[in-house]
Amino acid sequence: MPHPYIRHIHTCNRLAPTPLKPLFIGNSPVALTHPKAQDALQHTLEFFTETATGWHMHDSCMDFTARSHAFEILRQHLFRDGNIGPTRRELYTVAPYWGASLLATADRSVATILGIPAFGVHINGYVRRNDDIYMWIGRRSRHKPVAPGKLDNIVAGGQPAGLSLRENVLKESHEEASLPRHVAEQAKLTSLIRYSMSETNGTRFDTLFCYDLELPDTVIPTPCDDECEGFSLMPMAQVLSLIATTDDFKFNVPLVILDFAIRHGIVTSENTPNYVDLCMGLRRPFPAPFTQPAC
Amino acid sequence: MPHPYIRHIHTCNRLAPTPLKPLFIGNSPVALTHPKAQDALQHTLEFFTETATGWHMHDSCMDFTARSHAFEILRQHLFRDGNIGPTRRELYTVAPYWGASLLATADRSVATILGIPAFGVHINGYVRRNDDIYMWIGRRSRHKPVAPGKLDNIVAGGQPAGLSLRENVLKESHEEASLPRHVAEQAKLTSLIRYSMSETNGTRFDTLFCYDLELPDTVIPTPCDDECEGFSLMPMAQVLSLIATTDDFKFNVPLVILDFAIRHGIVTSENTPNYVDLCMGLRRPFPAPFTQPAC
Repeated sequence: MPHPYIRHIHTCNRLAPTPLKPLFIGNSPVALTHPKAQDALQHTLEFFTETATGWHMHDSCMDFTARSHAFEILRQHLFRDGNIGPTRRELYTVAPYWGASLLATADRSVATILGIPAFGVHINGYVRRNDDIYMWIGRRSRHKPVAPGKLDNIVAGGQPAGLSLRENVLKESHEEASLPRHVAEQAKLTSLIRYSMSETNGTRFDTLFCYDLELPDTVIPTPCDDECEGFSLMPMAQVLSLIATTDDFKFNVPLVILDFAIRHGIVTSENTPNYVDLCMGLRRPFPAPFTQPAC
Repeated sequence: MPHPYIRHIHTCNRLAPTPLKPLFIGNSPVALTHPKAQDALQHTLEFFTETATGWHMHDSCMDFTARSHAFEILRQHLFRDGNIGPTRRELYTVAPYWGASLLATADRSVATILGIPAFGVHINGYVRRNDDIYMWIGRRSRHKPVAPGKLDNIVAGGQPAGLSLRENVLKESHEEASLPRHVAEQAKLTSLIRYSMSETNGTRFDTLFCYDLELPDTVIPTPCDDECEGFSLMPMAQVLSLIATTDDFKFNVPLVILDFAIRHGIVTSENTPNYVDLCMGLRRPFPAPFTQPAC
């Protein structure tokens, strides 16, 4: 009988048997497209050609602007077909792997249906009192498109094109929790989570950059934009109990918190029988043809 | 051009195209045997049968004792064939996965040639001075069978059958570094590393349980048994520079230290272009047919 924590690993790591077609720019697979995107792709044959190996962007889309334009036209078809929501007004990067040169941008709304790997930042905001750790937990606003009303990290956000991770951390810390800049600057990148997750209309290929931010008792996070309803400071035992017994958290947040609890020696092989599966489940490679270029 | 750290990920994650034959106990694949083990297996047909799917231990080896005896006879043949060294006088577990019921034990000397997943504990022993971290680095004794004279963690050891991880940490902390029990008890399990690595005579399927142990300035590790020549306390920058530019460390120790440096926010995506590959490379799933039972 697996430990209840493992449930959340399963939730984020299920790849349906749906056949996904890779989309290439040059020789690089940059996306794994869902069957529901195929109609829209057939309507953008001025940019994309289908071959036995998948969809290929025409070489005539020679530069960043032309390639980004192709994705924008594709987005309009996907939206017209009713397979995606309206523009998220946030551009994601299209690249063969993290750190590679940016080939194009695409609206956030097409990431899942096209299966474009997406990146995000999550901050574990915590307070130490004697030997105990308390974690700041946010409640997502009821009108968010994803996971409305669910519990969340103190700060979390998708990684838009054109910002560095650190710039994004500072921006989101301000927007979501009103953290002063000198406080947010103390956030330390300490881990990475990766999973592949089928949804009804596409696939998430997600990589989360996880930050730890130890806060003094005097810093109280406060909603600034309308993304978050409010925050509570919970003892880690309560946070972990909610993770074990409820689905109150947004689907990927338990992974971020379990990773934190492992790194801080709170979840161990002694108190968690599936410790090895849990560790391995937090950092799963993407399926082929996505490449790990350096290893 | 990958960062020089990535070299160590490659070293530990290369699977030669050598065909490995799984060895089953019941329905569980417990090992991936190297071609050099096949002669010895052919000489132990009273315990093992070859089929199209691999080697199967006879059901007549009904209990733990009988199964462990079969591995001991197999070991004697492997040793006689000149493919392994003498007994390591340390028994490893044979089981379908970590945490599963122990099916048998096998001498440590057969783990690699038979491809039995092996487990170990590694301690990052470190000292904080202001905002800087210094790490205790050991020098392995010149007559060790593996990696003689190389640099190592303050404490590291294979996980023998019958001890808990914590008992092993305490035992190795005493034997290798003369750490007092109340000091070693402060070691916290904080991460897990996994890799699959072909060697000339077999394959390592290794899982390392990584501990952090912050030491006060007053605790000086000292060799107790003959496994270690001595210790030096090095600034992290020096440790990381040795990892980047030399092969002075035992092959898997750079992974343990890089994992530590990532968790402590020292190696980041800002100072290490291959950060994502590095994170992913530290925790790689085993190949089929080894199973991840819970996910």
